Amino acid sequence: MALLVEKTTSGREYKVKDMSQADFGRLEIELAEVEMPGLMSCRTEFGPTQPFKGARITGSLHMTIQTAVLIETLTALGAEVRWCSCNIFSTQDHAAAAIARDSAAVFAWKGETLQEYWWCTERALDWGPDGGPDLIVDDGGDATLLIHEGVKAEEEYEKTGKVPDPSSTDNAEFQIVLTIIRDGLKTDPKKYNRMKERLVGVSEETTTGVKRLYQMQASGTLLFPAINVNDSVTKSKFDNLYGCRHSLPDGLMRATDVMIAGKVAVVCGYGDVGKGCAAALKQAGARVIVTEIDPICALQALMEGLQVLTLEDVVSEADIFVTTTGNKDIIMVDHMKKMKNNAIVCNIGHFDNEIDMQGLETYPGVKRITIKPQTDRWVFPETNSGIIVLAEGRLMNLGCATGHPSFVMSCSFTNQVIAQLELWKEKSTGKYKKEVYVLPKHLDEKVAALHLGKLGAKLTKLSKDQADYISVPIEGPYKPPHYRY
Amino acid sequence: MALLVEKTTSGREYKVKDMSQADFGRLEIELAEVEMPGLMSCRTEFGPTQPFKGARITGSLHMTIQTAVLIETLTALGAEVRWCSCNIFSTQDHAAAAIARDSAAVFAWKGETLQEYWWCTERALDWGPDGGPDLIVDDGGDATLLIHEGVKAEEEYEKTGKVPDPSSTDNAEFQIVLTIIRDGLKTDPKKYNRMKERLVGVSEETTTGVKRLYQMQASGTLLFPAINVNDSVTKSKFDNLYGCRHSLPDGLMRATDVMIAGKVAVVCGYGDVGKGCAAALKQAGARVIVTEIDPICALQALMEGLQVLTLEDVVSEADIFVTTTGNKDIIMVDHMKKMKNNAIVCNIGHFDNEIDMQGLETYPGVKRITIKPQTDRWVFPETNSGIIVLAEGRLMNLGCATGHPSFVMSCSFTNQVIAQLELWKEKSTGKYKKEVYVLPKHLDEKVAALHLGKLGAKLTKLSKDQADYISVPIEGPYKPPHYRY
Amino acid sequence: MALLVEKTTSGREYKVKDMSQADFGRLEIELAEVEMPGLMSCRTEFGPTQPFKGARITGSLHMTIQTAVLIETLTALGAEVRWCSCNIFSTQDHAAAAIARDSAAVFAWKGETLQEYWWCTERALDWGPDGGPDLIVDDGGDATLLIHEGVKAEEEYEKTGKVPDPSSTDNAEFQIVLTIIRDGLKTDPKKYNRMKERLVGVSEETTTGVKRLYQMQASGTLLFPAINVNDSVTKSKFDNLYGCRHSLPDGLMRATDVMIAGKVAVVCGYGDVGKGCAAALKQAGARVIVTEIDPICALQALMEGLQVLTLEDVVSEADIFVTTTGNKDIIMVDHMKKMKNNAIVCNIGHFDNEIDMQGLETYPGVKRITIKPQTDRWVFPETNSGIIVLAEGRLMNLGCATGHPSFVMSCSFTNQVIAQLELWKEKSTGKYKKEVYVLPKHLDEKVAALHLGKLGAKLTKLSKDQADYISVPIEGPYKPPHYRY
Amino acid sequence: MALLVEKTTSGREYKVKDMSQADFGRLEIELAEVEMPGLMSCRTEFGPTQPFKGARITGSLHMTIQTAVLIETLTALGAEVRWCSCNIFSTQDHAAAAIARDSAAVFAWKGETLQEYWWCTERALDWGPDGGPDLIVDDGGDATLLIHEGVKAEEEYEKTGKVPDPSSTDNAEFQIVLTIIRDGLKTDPKKYNRMKERLVGVSEETTTGVKRLYQMQASGTLLFPAINVNDSVTKSKFDNLYGCRHSLPDGLMRATDVMIAGKVAVVCGYGDVGKGCAAALKQAGARVIVTEIDPICALQALMEGLQVLTLEDVVSEADIFVTTTGNKDIIMVDHMKKMKNNAIVCNIGHFDNEIDMQGLETYPGVKRITIKPQTDRWVFPETNSGIIVLAEGRLMNLGCATGHPSFVMSCSFTNQVIAQLELWKEKSTGKYKKEVYVLPKHLDEKVAALHLGKLGAKLTKLSKDQADYISVPIEGPYKPPHYRY
Repeated sequence: MALLVEKTTSGREYKVKDMSQADFGRLEIELAEVEMPGLMSCRTEFGPTQPFKGARITGSLHMTIQTAVLIETLTALGAEVRWCSCNIFSTQDHAAAAIARDSAAVFAWKGETLQEYWWCTERALDWGPDGGPDLIVDDGGDATLLIHEGVKAEEEYEKTGKVPDPSSTDNAEFQIVLTIIRDGLKTDPKKYNRMKERLVGVSEETTTGVKRLYQMQASGTLLFPAINVNDSVTKSKFDNLYGCRHSLPDGLMRATDVMIAGKVAVVCGYGDVGKGCAAALKQAGARVIVTEIDPICALQALMEGLQVLTLEDVVSEADIFVTTTGNKDIIMVDHMKKMKNNAIVCNIGHFDNEIDMQGLETYPGVKRITIKPQTDRWVFPETNSGIIVLAEGRLMNLGCATGHPSFVMSCSFTNQVIAQLELWKEKSTGKYKKEVYVLPKHLDEKVAALHLGKLGAKLTKLSKDQADYISVPIEGPYKPPHYRY
Repeated sequence: MALLVEKTTSGREYKVKDMSQADFGRLEIELAEVEMPGLMSCRTEFGPTQPFKGARITGSLHMTIQTAVLIETLTALGAEVRWCSCNIFSTQDHAAAAIARDSAAVFAWKGETLQEYWWCTERALDWGPDGGPDLIVDDGGDATLLIHEGVKAEEEYEKTGKVPDPSSTDNAEFQIVLTIIRDGLKTDPKKYNRMKERLVGVSEETTTGVKRLYQMQASGTLLFPAINVNDSVTKSKFDNLYGCRHSLPDGLMRATDVMIAGKVAVVCGYGDVGKGCAAALKQAGARVIVTEIDPICALQALMEGLQVLTLEDVVSEADIFVTTTGNKDIIMVDHMKKMKNNAIVCNIGHFDNEIDMQGLETYPGVKRITIKPQTDRWVFPETNSGIIVLAEGRLMNLGCATGHPSFVMSCSFTNQVIAQLELWKEKSTGKYKKEVYVLPKHLDEKVAALHLGKLGAKLTKLSKDQADYISVPIEGPYKPPHYRY
Repeated sequence: MALLVEKTTSGREYKVKDMSQADFGRLEIELAEVEMPGLMSCRTEFGPTQPFKGARITGSLHMTIQTAVLIETLTALGAEVRWCSCNIFSTQDHAAAAIARDSAAVFAWKGETLQEYWWCTERALDWGPDGGPDLIVDDGGDATLLIHEGVKAEEEYEKTGKVPDPSSTDNAEFQIVLTIIRDGLKTDPKKYNRMKERLVGVSEETTTGVKRLYQMQASGTLLFPAINVNDSVTKSKFDNLYGCRHSLPDGLMRATDVMIAGKVAVVCGYGDVGKGCAAALKQAGARVIVTEIDPICALQALMEGLQVLTLEDVVSEADIFVTTTGNKDIIMVDHMKKMKNNAIVCNIGHFDNEIDMQGLETYPGVKRITIKPQTDRWVFPETNSGIIVLAEGRLMNLGCATGHPSFVMSCSFTNQVIAQLELWKEKSTGKYKKEVYVLPKHLDEKVAALHLGKLGAKLTKLSKDQADYISVPIEGPYKPPHYRY
Repeated sequence: MALLVEKTTSGREYKVKDMSQADFGRLEIELAEVEMPGLMSCRTEFGPTQPFKGARITGSLHMTIQTAVLIETLTALGAEVRWCSCNIFSTQDHAAAAIARDSAAVFAWKGETLQEYWWCTERALDWGPDGGPDLIVDDGGDATLLIHEGVKAEEEYEKTGKVPDPSSTDNAEFQIVLTIIRDGLKTDPKKYNRMKERLVGVSEETTTGVKRLYQMQASGTLLFPAINVNDSVTKSKFDNLYGCRHSLPDGLMRATDVMIAGKVAVVCGYGDVGKGCAAALKQAGARVIVTEIDPICALQALMEGLQVLTLEDVVSEADIFVTTTGNKDIIMVDHMKKMKNNAIVCNIGHFDNEIDMQGLETYPGVKRITIKPQTDRWVFPETNSGIIVLAEGRLMNLGCATGHPSFVMSCSFTNQVIAQLELWKEKSTGKYKKEVYVLPKHLDEKVAALHLGKLGAKLTKLSKDQADYISVPIEGPYKPPHYRY
């Protein structure tokens, strides 16, 4: 795909797979709106006052139908938006087309190369000569990373004249990042610094990105305020848990049509994502075995009737392997060699290094047979036995299915909108330093409340007397900050 | 699509959507083989003796990947095969292509018109001038129906010279059947009688087809022996139950991406199919309400914590409606008008008359918006509110997803192979009269046994003493015929 | 306990543990009545016409609160009743007291010796000089057995003058039966023959008793008609399944207070009882392993995510062992020796020979420590490690808890009442031969229907058109006889 | 029961129901030890160094078998112990007897009056003339309350000579507290001050007690350091959740034998306790409806398929009502009047004011029929319809069953031991101020780790590389403090 920016008749930039899918995307966006009451309530509540008037928002987050409703909520509140995906396989091309045609600048398609991926990210951040975005919606932290690395390189370049050396790393993806920055330095050695100057803050969607932010906060290198959306209760305890409970089997079924009942499934990691996956697999009739490093999570798994073993104990007996750890090197090529013929290996946790894709790809004599896009059978020469890897080791629910369903994403994305509003409202008050913040509990509770009506729920109201008895305001927040839900 | 039969280089007839998908079909067939241990065991056990040598088998059964493995098991045992689908939406085109190219005459594609559907059925039954098939694998009974109606018409024609009058019925589909027979009569007034003469028997896959067979047996009009595969325990208690538990959510997710958790779902009917659907929806986090006519099934639903109400009680509150009754007129257009906006209506039980599609299609002012194939939004003029109908009211797991998964279909289809073997072996012994039979329990147990190894199970063996104590043979069968499992 | 019959002031015979518990029993009977809508409906429907007027009914069935409601339904319909329990541990003494005081002749207490047990059975059958009961309600077939053995002995005695020789068997319990018969012969050599003459029929409650009846039918030795209540759908698919799902954990908790979550539980047998037990244990958070001889049931277990192994595979790893097979010699003392310290061993299936109690009791050096009645720790001398055996190997839900709950027993017992009514109504029509019958489906459906209102359910009604379409009467029965539910 | 302290032959004080039950208690304690690996590990690890040498510990916590193992762990580590229960119905008399005979001073029996209850509390705190305990293990905060109220009264008395006036409150229980303090003031006006001086700290078991502590901390009135054991993950996410999931159905079944399947159950509150209760009821086959004030918890309930309504919506339809809120005035007498006949009302959350027992008891014309201890039927005069109240509105799992099972209490109590050790070790370092603390995460993880082996689990170990990648130590702790599990 030639990397040329295109323009709509109204002059908005984009690069998507197929603009003719815009109508189909629009139909599905309209369906999703009915399932996303939190976002639609934001439009009703905030739309009239146009709080984002004048704000430029860049998003790096899976360009799906649900994200389309998020983007159009941001624009409905007055923002200008540029968007890219945060995963090479997660874009839904019809969603990208509809948004590109109707609402925002989009640079995203399903099946980007890594090279293309970072080109898209750069496009989304590039608002022209007078700097970058005012706000970033980030997922996994790649947009944030690019700015931080860019600024670091520009400072080094200013001080020493040295440019980044892609060969200094053997991480193929990071080589690309350094190349982009190096190439940019030549034409504009202040670009990322101008971005940094303008930026009001970022709101980050996931565990992985949040972890990076806390590391930067700890090392004092964070360049702008960040709101940790991931750790809103209505995000991490909903999207991670209930989202994966829905989308793991969805991805498995679309990719392989395999019967889950009767199978032995190994879930690596029993955090929120792992809990959702294990629940889904158990309910579908699999026998689930969990691997864990954390004794507390391990004990939770046991209390649900799940066996807790190491991967080595079960590698040759299980039928389905799912990684959810957010760590690297979980399933190595040596594990894969020992698996049963047609064992399914997939990742719903984190980057593609959770599964040793590099080890697999470079295994001597290994044969890759693509059943269909995102579903590959890898055959080992010694045994002539194969395993099935989904989404090339990347997030399988996005690569093989359509990601989390609208309703649960409405919870997550309503947090995003509220976080963005908060950053923008306080842009000049100094309320937010170059640190990582979580949303206050009353906003978290508000997000939940916006989603109850759609499901027909009726809340009980505290009496004054009862509220006093447990020392909470009648209208909440109802729980102490450490409450675990 | 022009209805012209094509031929492979080897001269085998076919009509499929796209022969270029054959390679893809082959890859998926190979995956499915690993999941279908019962069929593969049949190949190992019976292949060497070629028991079907000389047998012509016609199948009318969803032309999916799983069916492809069934077909190639039949051919591996020596049969010649012609095939059509038993549902206009259920064909997987890559499966059809692979089989047409490699193994059998196939007449099937996804999205046939009713006209095309019956043309395919006729093609599958037509083995040339010297009669039809020796054996039929039927699903829903359409192939059986065509022969019975054909014979009836030929007899009437011989006696009275009268040909069938399509305008004598207002069932649009039956008009087509009568037309085909009428037109055939002119060129060959003995065609169906020759088929009848040659036919050794039929094995029938589903409740609906079986019901028709028992009605014909009761009225004395059944023309050949029939084996009721549906009521093998390893069919009805597995495919109907566990198959639907898998494929209902699969179809819902592929068609609509709707989050099931939190929704109110109505399952009409709590037989095996309804039990599987209700279990799947409950496990995915829906609140499930069952409608039932049978007090025993209703009490079973209650014991599982499901509410039992009438459709009228809940029609305006529920989000998802699934029909599983095998009856007609379950969800009428008057119900649909009262539903919430974007309520999902689908059928996994039976023909498309389970949902009042005709009432919907002819409703004054109704608007149909096709989101994507098999997913239509129908908007009522009074409310401007829409409902989403899947697979045009036909079986949604086949129309919107890929049907039941391979493993459970291996159980069903191993019963089919055994039934076909039995009919063929006894073709001249008179063992089977023009009646409906079920397979003996030891064969049912054998089918199950063939599927245990794949799942790592180990059976316990009775001692002689224990077998005597409970009065069963050591090797089974272990249960009396009336045992309900 | 001295075996002397006592009499109420009204002259009715009884032998119970403690008459002062009658008030407590009455209170619990009144609670149970609210939970037993089927029986209460029988009182309303049939009470006015007193259909059992003149009928003597003997029952041999666990003398619990629920049975008390059954007994008082029989008396409310006009019957005279004598009762014993069918298990030495299952009597609830307050229930026995209330019935003895208010309604029927009762011979039952918790913790009978085997000697006492058979004395009670004989008392319940003894209606004085002019023969035995008109009808028997049997559970496990002991009352039926005693009459059959008695008649056999009387015939032998008449022919040859020989009396039964208790030493001819090494089954301790059967020795007692023979002794009773032998001793009776001397005083009244025609007693059991007179019973046989009078008897109209028996209705049998459980699998075990039904199996005996079918064996007698097969061998032509059945002396009177029998109705197999066990195989009513509303019995075997409710009481066996949902009853055990309730009462297994109840028994475990009352006997041992053990936390079920996290434990490894082995369920031997996956019939209806095993299915209920496995479901209960899984839901409580145990990891459940099933042992099975029948491949179909084994495959069902696998589809629910349960592992299927042999007892030998898991005997040293599991924490809880439950037998549900209805066979003998399932858990032998050699298994028990290999178990973990404080592994729990219990039986909810059948007689106490399902667990090798004799092997355990006679194991050299074994030590029995009674924690509390029905909860014994048995310590092996080699390991000084103990296992915990519940209810001395007999039905643990009756020995350690209170048996099945009222609601599900109302289903079973409504079948009993209907069966008794049917036998009595047809006593002189010859409708029932000396064979085993099941109740017709419309009565089965009626039993279910009587239980729906209590749970707030509303049934859907078929239209005439729909009923015709599926060829059933509008009012049912709705299913063919072979339907498995 | 006359309130006289008794003494063992060794001179230790006690007051229990029946010392002859000590042997039975000992047997059950020995069984429990096998189920409490965390406590037994503490004995192994710390026993040899006798860290509690010289420490006096007073406990106010349900005097059950599990608590007996806790007490004997404290004494095994060198402590002297005095104990009372924190609930008038929760004592298991055989546990109390065994401990009183063998290990510690116990003042507790099942069925104390409120007067007796506070007498027991005072006895447990009274270590003789030279002050009170060094450490307190508290549950619900009553021991802590008594000291705080005592100190307050003594200060007031010293300043003004005024003694507490029991008639100043209309809370009957608090009147008793004030009376005790008033009466004590006369003989020893410095008693509670001396206690305060000596006290090193308290570790508190439950939400209710913790809430009181935080209130005292906030108002600056907390007199000594407190460790909040309740909010250890291995406490609140285990005992509250999995403990109640076990003991709620246990209590229901022992008290009422009611069949849970098919019933409509209302769970008021969906915190950890409510989640456990709802899961148990749902799994047992009830249809569960949740009431909530907190929109986040409400949304969690919905995601699990539970309906969320207000109590008013369902009061006349439900069969079982459970309060888990930790608040007061949840089910009022006006609600109870509208309930179905024999609806079951019980509390597993908090004090007996969660249910309006006072309103019920004083309702004009209401009749109380005690079925058995802790199970009362209350009949309203207007309707002659009754409801069944368990445990007189107090914690039903302790009043009607035996509380949480040993294994989960081992988690909670290991936290207690560790908290007590920590307080005692730091008694003179000033590490703990007069504030409320939670245990550090590595200790929380250690508690979990001590419980894995018993359940056969194997943990995965991080590599150095992986640990660095996610920035945690190889040996943990693995999660940030805000992690919710």
